[in-house]
Amino acid sequence: MNKVVQRPATALYPVPVVLVSCGDARPNIITLAWVGTLCSEPPMVGIAVRPSRFSHGLIRATGEFVVNLPTASLLSVVERCGTVSGRQVDKFALCGITPAPASAVRPPLIAECPLHLECRVRHTIPLGSHDLFVGEVMAVQADEALLDARGEVDFQRAEWLCYIAGRYHRLGEHL
Amino acid sequence: MNKVVQRPATALYPVPVVLVSCGDARPNIITLAWVGTLCSEPPMVGIAVRPSRFSHGLIRATGEFVVNLPTASLLSVVERCGTVSGRQVDKFALCGITPAPASAVRPPLIAECPLHLECRVRHTIPLGSHDLFVGEVMAVQADEALLDARGEVDFQRAEWLCYIAGRYHRLGEHL
Repeated sequence: MNKVVQRPATALYPVPVVLVSCGDARPNIITLAWVGTLCSEPPMVGIAVRPSRFSHGLIRATGEFVVNLPTASLLSVVERCGTVSGRQVDKFALCGITPAPASAVRPPLIAECPLHLECRVRHTIPLGSHDLFVGEVMAVQADEALLDARGEVDFQRAEWLCYIAGRYHRLGEHL
Repeated sequence: MNKVVQRPATALYPVPVVLVSCGDARPNIITLAWVGTLCSEPPMVGIAVRPSRFSHGLIRATGEFVVNLPTASLLSVVERCGTVSGRQVDKFALCGITPAPASAVRPPLIAECPLHLECRVRHTIPLGSHDLFVGEVMAVQADEALLDARGEVDFQRAEWLCYIAGRYHRLGEHL
């Protein structure tokens, strides 16, 4: 197969797409795809956020955020929270979604998502257009319906979303 | 929906699964799922690697690596490169796959993958069980068959893989 050299670009796909909730008294939500797991012990995730975003300041101020995993039925919330700014609107009210208390951090969970990673910022690394927040996972919360007989999360029990170059996909069959 | 608090864990899914090629005279391949895009300008990706891995030393020594995106047809290579060590075997020979020259870095591409991100390490951040290598994308190479009429990568033209809690999935329909 002939290979063609392209200019440098963000070409690593498919990636997750998540709703990150942040802030305290007046919480906000930001849709992010530049996210991933960075470490197993302790469990750590990275989220990359442009410094100009309203959520960036909220995460800096509290040092905490929650990664909420959306399902395909929440696609309209994912799209809306990625295209309006929390400076102007309360995205919880705008999207008709429900804040719920986290167990280990101050920002609220998004109740309609079935899985939540409650994170505390351990490193902030400026990279250029984005700052990388490295968050240690302090607790996970999951819908009861996701849990198997042993009380462990069964990821096959929800319809997750992926993001690939501007498009959202369902997860397909397992191999 | 009742929420149940779980212990801290790596619960951010679905994530990509990639083949990272590294090293120079005697190159190696490592399967990784703790990877993601971290920055748009400049384009940067993060890969998390346990210091005990053979590939960790190769990436430290050269300061370079290539992220190769596998398709569903390469699942056996993905599984094999994630379960044997390059200290004992040449994984290119073991898997019957082909090194091809990169354009901007010394480690080879894996020719059978349709897309490649050639990266130079800009930061190395020890996090615990894993070190995070932050790589700037110096060039992208793509199979001709992935390119649309304008010469841009069309990600809909290949069957990509996702990883979710120990299982590999195809990407499903787009929404």
